[in-house]
Amino acid sequence: MPTTTTRVPQEERTRVMRSRLLDATVECLVERGFAGTSTTLVSERAGVSRGAQLHHFPTKNDLVVAAVEHLTEKRGAELAEAAAALPDGPRHTRAVLAMLADHFTGAVFAAALELWVAARTDESLLAAVEPLEQRIGREIHRITVDLLGVDESLPGNRELVQATLDLVRGLGLASTITDDSRRRAAILDRWSEVLEHALHHPDDTDGDQS
Amino acid sequence: MPTTTTRVPQEERTRVMRSRLLDATVECLVERGFAGTSTTLVSERAGVSRGAQLHHFPTKNDLVVAAVEHLTEKRGAELAEAAAALPDGPRHTRAVLAMLADHFTGAVFAAALELWVAARTDESLLAAVEPLEQRIGREIHRITVDLLGVDESLPGNRELVQATLDLVRGLGLASTITDDSRRRAAILDRWSEVLEHALHHPDDTDGDQS
Repeated sequence: MPTTTTRVPQEERTRVMRSRLLDATVECLVERGFAGTSTTLVSERAGVSRGAQLHHFPTKNDLVVAAVEHLTEKRGAELAEAAAALPDGPRHTRAVLAMLADHFTGAVFAAALELWVAARTDESLLAAVEPLEQRIGREIHRITVDLLGVDESLPGNRELVQATLDLVRGLGLASTITDDSRRRAAILDRWSEVLEHALHHPDDTDGDQS
Repeated sequence: MPTTTTRVPQEERTRVMRSRLLDATVECLVERGFAGTSTTLVSERAGVSRGAQLHHFPTKNDLVVAAVEHLTEKRGAELAEAAAALPDGPRHTRAVLAMLADHFTGAVFAAALELWVAARTDESLLAAVEPLEQRIGREIHRITVDLLGVDESLPGNRELVQATLDLVRGLGLASTITDDSRRRAAILDRWSEVLEHALHHPDDTDGDQS
């Protein structure tokens, strides 16, 4: 454990402690699953006292929901940053799909998956997970619309963005069982072609440019 | 418990008992999740003695893997039967997608999802689930190719079938948290249009019919 001195403000120490707890929770969820995650294990792994942990997150459900929320926000910011580095031109759509697929096959997705599946049969967890999942869903939808430059006022475009996200979610689920990165790449190649043809653009009306 | 008489052959009694155990296991997985499923609970629910249950399925893992396999086979046969009743003509693709989506939002999918996610962090379960998942994946792929009448020798078609299955798997995962049947219907409408345009057919070469 790092030593803390009186020169570190209380607020900053609290922030660091919460962050350590939430990172440790996601690690636990990824490595041991929801059933294998306990508040005791998390406080040990984070090097935070049981008392401090219980003060910030009284129950396991508080801890796991906060952890997935925290990591999703962090990951969302990383996604937005990575997006700035994406190539323009003909490979742009494919690069966006690769970024989304990376997100949905990574550790944050695995942790979220543990939470979603546990929430399916746990009412109190579901009450916390459902609004979180909807907020995450809206956020990733917004990022995808931005990245692909989609005009959602044109018919059918919104549904194509949603389908793209459900597709990468399905690929993410498959990847938890089998390492199928080659299969995934071929599917994304093909979907990229189809998506580029199928998305409507403001300037692709036939002749009528009014 | 139904009474058995000596006129019922042993083989038939065993078959019925196994089937009751496997049905009860899937019910347990759906209602209580993997962590909440125990061999004791299953034998009670099935009305089968602990001894008989342990004789047929010595461990929880044996039981859950056999249950998902059993139900997937039953459901596969139902799918094939339902397929015969699908409409021909312009609504055929959409009807196939509706059938697939129903499958991936039903009880068998929920039970399989519990198994997949538990296997992610349980090596011995993964060893049994991975080949099962691959067999199920190949089977549903084959059924989908048949139903849509896809010629997989043409470039890009195989990947579109795979993308379709990953899409409905993603929709299935989303449906475990939120009842989003309206959203799902709109996505499948759009996917159906895109799929019909994007799938290649043997007779759609441009002018060259050789």
